[in-house]
Amino acid sequence: MKKIRLPEGFVAGGMHCGLKKKRKDLALFFSERPCSVAAVFTTNLVKAAPVLLAQEQLSRTKKINAVLVNSGNANCMTGKRGLEDARMMVKTASGVLGVPEDAVLVSSTGVIGKYMNMDPVLDGIPKLAGMLSADGLLDAVDAIMTTDRFRKMSSRVVKIGGAEVTLTGVTKGAGMIDPNMATMLCYIMSDARITFGALKKALKEAAMGSFNAITVDGDMSTNDTVVVMANGAAGNRTIKAGNEDYRVFYRALFEISSELAQLIVKDGEGTTKVMSVRVKGMKSVRDAKKIAHAIANSLLVKCAVHGGDPNWGRIASSAGSSGVKFDPSKMDIVLDGVTFLKNGEFTSPDKAHRDTVFKSKDIHILVDMHTGSCEAVSYGCDLSRKYLAINSYYTT
Amino acid sequence: MKKIRLPEGFVAGGMHCGLKKKRKDLALFFSERPCSVAAVFTTNLVKAAPVLLAQEQLSRTKKINAVLVNSGNANCMTGKRGLEDARMMVKTASGVLGVPEDAVLVSSTGVIGKYMNMDPVLDGIPKLAGMLSADGLLDAVDAIMTTDRFRKMSSRVVKIGGAEVTLTGVTKGAGMIDPNMATMLCYIMSDARITFGALKKALKEAAMGSFNAITVDGDMSTNDTVVVMANGAAGNRTIKAGNEDYRVFYRALFEISSELAQLIVKDGEGTTKVMSVRVKGMKSVRDAKKIAHAIANSLLVKCAVHGGDPNWGRIASSAGSSGVKFDPSKMDIVLDGVTFLKNGEFTSPDKAHRDTVFKSKDIHILVDMHTGSCEAVSYGCDLSRKYLAINSYYTT
Repeated sequence: MKKIRLPEGFVAGGMHCGLKKKRKDLALFFSERPCSVAAVFTTNLVKAAPVLLAQEQLSRTKKINAVLVNSGNANCMTGKRGLEDARMMVKTASGVLGVPEDAVLVSSTGVIGKYMNMDPVLDGIPKLAGMLSADGLLDAVDAIMTTDRFRKMSSRVVKIGGAEVTLTGVTKGAGMIDPNMATMLCYIMSDARITFGALKKALKEAAMGSFNAITVDGDMSTNDTVVVMANGAAGNRTIKAGNEDYRVFYRALFEISSELAQLIVKDGEGTTKVMSVRVKGMKSVRDAKKIAHAIANSLLVKCAVHGGDPNWGRIASSAGSSGVKFDPSKMDIVLDGVTFLKNGEFTSPDKAHRDTVFKSKDIHILVDMHTGSCEAVSYGCDLSRKYLAINSYYTT
Repeated sequence: MKKIRLPEGFVAGGMHCGLKKKRKDLALFFSERPCSVAAVFTTNLVKAAPVLLAQEQLSRTKKINAVLVNSGNANCMTGKRGLEDARMMVKTASGVLGVPEDAVLVSSTGVIGKYMNMDPVLDGIPKLAGMLSADGLLDAVDAIMTTDRFRKMSSRVVKIGGAEVTLTGVTKGAGMIDPNMATMLCYIMSDARITFGALKKALKEAAMGSFNAITVDGDMSTNDTVVVMANGAAGNRTIKAGNEDYRVFYRALFEISSELAQLIVKDGEGTTKVMSVRVKGMKSVRDAKKIAHAIANSLLVKCAVHGGDPNWGRIASSAGSSGVKFDPSKMDIVLDGVTFLKNGEFTSPDKAHRDTVFKSKDIHILVDMHTGSCEAVSYGCDLSRKYLAINSYYTT
């Protein structure tokens, strides 16, 4: 992997403050220049304190300077005390960094339902602020990880009107593919100069085909957070929604988001194979997405992929139980390039072809309903013994 | 288990015809007297041929005499040929039994997407008809089983206006708790004299709290079928919807349904623990059911139950991602009698109490939202290594 650097004007750092036993557990991303900010949060009704607080702050401000993240405790289901703890983290960091309180967002990831151990966090913040540097990105990434097996980062440099603009994103996930509870945190920083409206639009669109392709509404964790911040240090002419500059910026943002989302899947707990489920020929993207998600999420499909069994009947059945109407007699199912179902009838592919299916680490499921021109992709993974081992004995 | 007998006027039989290698694979339930019939079928959009055919037949008739069932092949995703095969089974059986074609329903369970091997079935039907007897119930039950580990039967005898009325039900399941694809077939026979309307109402209501508590709409297999037939041989005064006789009959039907549904859960693939999830204090039964189902269905909850880890945060999170609105600050969570969450805050139960939770084979999860008087129960099971072993290497 080529070295990934922070965009102009950003510094970062990560340290062990003491929430976890040994590993780093406190991260800070900072830009002295105020940043335009856009964010998407979990749609879970049960939201962690830092999510509630960040949503409140972003209803008041369009500019932030910093994001503080702790791992080891999700600060969720912690009631009023949890909210006070999150506020205290904001207050302490904003004081140390010399920026307004609303210019610091906080994220937390880890165990649910345990009050924060605040002493190490409050002691850690000033130390961490003193450690911030343009080379601090890896330390920060390490500090946001929980059961992640590897660092997840992505970066792009694009030219916008002669200026060099950098976008750099980092994420943690490592939970289920559809992270029912495995918190996804993602921070994308850029030195682009971009309007608040354009940044918001770009994130919303980019998230749809990336983070939301693995974490669909109604199935998210209590803490999921994606924040994009852009400080304008690149000195480019201001990017506005809709123009050519916007398309260049959006493409880079989408590529980063898509790369990070797929890294999360790849690092799913116990994942041995990654599957992309593409559903096309639908009348709406929404319906295509619903079916793709139902398939990628089916326990039986996940098991079939794991076992290398081209059980296309399970794919047809999970599509049928997705709640979306379609005509089964028009359905095609293609697994790793081999057609099993054509116009709703089994094609009886020969053994030599069947035996190639679901054998690699990169599985492709294609469903074509032939009733429209819309499509969607969902990313999923297999279900392995290791998944069970991790999730059955993980202690609260 | 005390001996379970067929109601008056019913005979049954089961045999090995040759769809499976060795085990019985063809079953017949028959009453010479025509029976009032009520049935519920899968809501999966992809419906197997015998389901499509039975729905067509029941749109024309309110009386049947027989149900013919094969295991070893689900006759699903088999297009027109599959439908013709199902019709041929009906035709052959009705000829042999000397009843109208619409008086014979067919069910199939087994592999999806493979054409029926019709020769053994058509050869088998007359032989099976010759083997029918009042003692043939066990053979029939054996012949409808697929990966079931034990026979599932339930029976009740009730007095209705002086007459002794028997209800006897048999089922197969043994798939996932929420049988995405594991077909549930259930046949309940009674010698009650009951109107078509009353029988239909009774089944609909009984299924709600039993079969539908484990197989919710939109998550059913392609073949799921529950048929209730009542031949009137008990000579009771006719049961009509709403009167006291109806209540006696309904209670017996509900008890049987509930018992059979729980036996299916207990025999879920790889199940080592059964959980009942009760959600109360809701404004509607529908919402209560949705939350109960989301919890019972959550991979992370299933893993926690399997590992004996009282991870109540996963329960809160899956409730929150169910799509139902509630107030998290009013939520109580009680696991096997130990309160973990009270009004949205963690109660910190001591270790001695915590250690008793999720340790038995019979797990009780209670969620109280304190916002209404409606409730619902879902039955689920844990997720074990054995489940994976069965479903990863089961070959189509």
